[in-house]
Amino acid sequence: MNTKQVKAYGTTAIAEPLHELTINRRTVQAHDVEMEILYCGICHSDLHQINGDFGPFAVPIVPGHEMVGRVTAVGAHVTNFKAGDLAAIGCIVDSCGHCEYCNDGLEPFCDEGVTYSFNSNDKVSGGQTFGGFSKTYVCHEKYVLHMPSFTNLAAAAPLLCAGITVYSPLKHWQAGPGKKVGILGIGGLGHIAIKMAKAMGAHVTVFTTSAAKIEDAKRLGADEAVLSADAEQMAKYNRKLHFIIDTVSAKHDVNVYLNLLRHDGTVVLVGLPPEPLEIGAFNVVLGRRSFAGSNIGGIAETQEMLDFCFQHNITADSEIINIQDVNEAFERLAKGDVKYRFVIDMASLKN
Amino acid sequence: MNTKQVKAYGTTAIAEPLHELTINRRTVQAHDVEMEILYCGICHSDLHQINGDFGPFAVPIVPGHEMVGRVTAVGAHVTNFKAGDLAAIGCIVDSCGHCEYCNDGLEPFCDEGVTYSFNSNDKVSGGQTFGGFSKTYVCHEKYVLHMPSFTNLAAAAPLLCAGITVYSPLKHWQAGPGKKVGILGIGGLGHIAIKMAKAMGAHVTVFTTSAAKIEDAKRLGADEAVLSADAEQMAKYNRKLHFIIDTVSAKHDVNVYLNLLRHDGTVVLVGLPPEPLEIGAFNVVLGRRSFAGSNIGGIAETQEMLDFCFQHNITADSEIINIQDVNEAFERLAKGDVKYRFVIDMASLKN
Repeated sequence: MNTKQVKAYGTTAIAEPLHELTINRRTVQAHDVEMEILYCGICHSDLHQINGDFGPFAVPIVPGHEMVGRVTAVGAHVTNFKAGDLAAIGCIVDSCGHCEYCNDGLEPFCDEGVTYSFNSNDKVSGGQTFGGFSKTYVCHEKYVLHMPSFTNLAAAAPLLCAGITVYSPLKHWQAGPGKKVGILGIGGLGHIAIKMAKAMGAHVTVFTTSAAKIEDAKRLGADEAVLSADAEQMAKYNRKLHFIIDTVSAKHDVNVYLNLLRHDGTVVLVGLPPEPLEIGAFNVVLGRRSFAGSNIGGIAETQEMLDFCFQHNITADSEIINIQDVNEAFERLAKGDVKYRFVIDMASLKN
Repeated sequence: MNTKQVKAYGTTAIAEPLHELTINRRTVQAHDVEMEILYCGICHSDLHQINGDFGPFAVPIVPGHEMVGRVTAVGAHVTNFKAGDLAAIGCIVDSCGHCEYCNDGLEPFCDEGVTYSFNSNDKVSGGQTFGGFSKTYVCHEKYVLHMPSFTNLAAAAPLLCAGITVYSPLKHWQAGPGKKVGILGIGGLGHIAIKMAKAMGAHVTVFTTSAAKIEDAKRLGADEAVLSADAEQMAKYNRKLHFIIDTVSAKHDVNVYLNLLRHDGTVVLVGLPPEPLEIGAFNVVLGRRSFAGSNIGGIAETQEMLDFCFQHNITADSEIINIQDVNEAFERLAKGDVKYRFVIDMASLKN
């Protein structure tokens, strides 16, 4: 398969800083779309991967899976995109395409396993996939989204992972008028969840461990914001919420939040704490409550989410950086020092 | 309030054997039903209570909450029962009757808290409620069930707690044709769950730690029975089940079972392990799976369950004992030495 050399940022070992390198991208095949990457968000799972938290990685590893760009070329059979279109690519760039889950728009649960946009076996080109910290991306048109013309296109990049990760459960558990929704944690995911849940018409209560974030929760649109350490305040929410989106990625006591749920309520984990979480039997048995998880969404739902966000003018609160500052950004991300998402202006990676 | 003295079996301290004693039952009020107890099942939660596992208890404590009997008297305003009717009383004998949950038939989640049939504050008579290890029971007609004329009335007593505890989640998670349902554990609850899930038309796979129970699972109607320690057999069920009823009351690894679920599948805990259970984030996040709990059901659902079991000839596999053997029965229950439920013939408690 013919390839093109493309500049990228990646690393060849854990603890080695990311640096400029060159990768090969395949030339467009009949159903491929090639996109110049304009902006790429930085997600906590990029950090997990380069830290080896999810296991060893093939080298080099080029992170990045929140890509917004402009189509530069399409394959002979592509009719849905043309050069010049705004486009986007998220976490998934391939799946079997024929199992019941792919047929149902649940590609992330594909029977044969999905190909992620980076550090995944590339079934088409061989080797592994390289992510969006690069000048271009090439994949099958099925996994390319139409990007609405957001005024702040850079700040829309995090929607491709952080956005769909909270949109999907908000939709599934039916956030809307009359629903009391809790958001646990105000970070990359939580701050977008607040905006989306409000736009869907739900009553939104935010729970945070940080007194400094109470005001910010309200600025972001929350109806109420509660310091989770304040037992007296917390008690007021006992049995009150329909469901809670739990964005916390560290070990925490979810039983406290299960008790805030109404009958049939659900705490939905979208964070990825490395240690198991402990659930007391009575906290789920009483009130038929659930502790559930939710992953990113399928491709069709990701498109729906982008269109919803465009309609409601929702983007991430973003700090735009140059690619040369990516190592410092990862250091700050590890400390939670970002409000609330880094996005790389890929023009800074000169050809 | 006028009372009658009634013989019962109970205890006044943890570790003290149950013995004969006398309790007071109120005389029937306008909306009350009085029932002579013919049979009373023994449930693991009776054992938990007399062991003090759920906290201290008021003395004396008279267990028993799976009562089948015959109506002996009704209050002036009762039109739905008459003397001579077969009747039954389960776990709940009072609730506020006007909150949204009571209105929705979800009495166990009553906003004001329910009154359980024993060791609960009795809002009508004062003091605490005394359970079914006694000659009679008196409560408001709303909490009395019409007992179908089961051929083996004794073996139907365990339906009042064990039965509804598994019927309710089987209905809620929609066991039926085309559904692959797992049952984890074959005991008092599990063996009834197998019978019910089959009667509902589901494909039933039983998971057990006991090789000796594999054949029994099939005798009870299971389509498949798997030794959970056999990793090779277990792997065949990966991503295959719609939901699993988890009847295990000891600490166990539910992650193993979460991984057997299809997308949107649920492990439903109906056991009450005393220690928290650990859930790994990826086991729920991938496939939007849930770990849920389920309690007994409401009164209307309990009636529906009794009628369903009568129609499908479902009772518990029961060992009928005299009340004088109840202490030995508790010892055997603690060791899991019963197939699968003890039921007391209350005629053995002589007047």
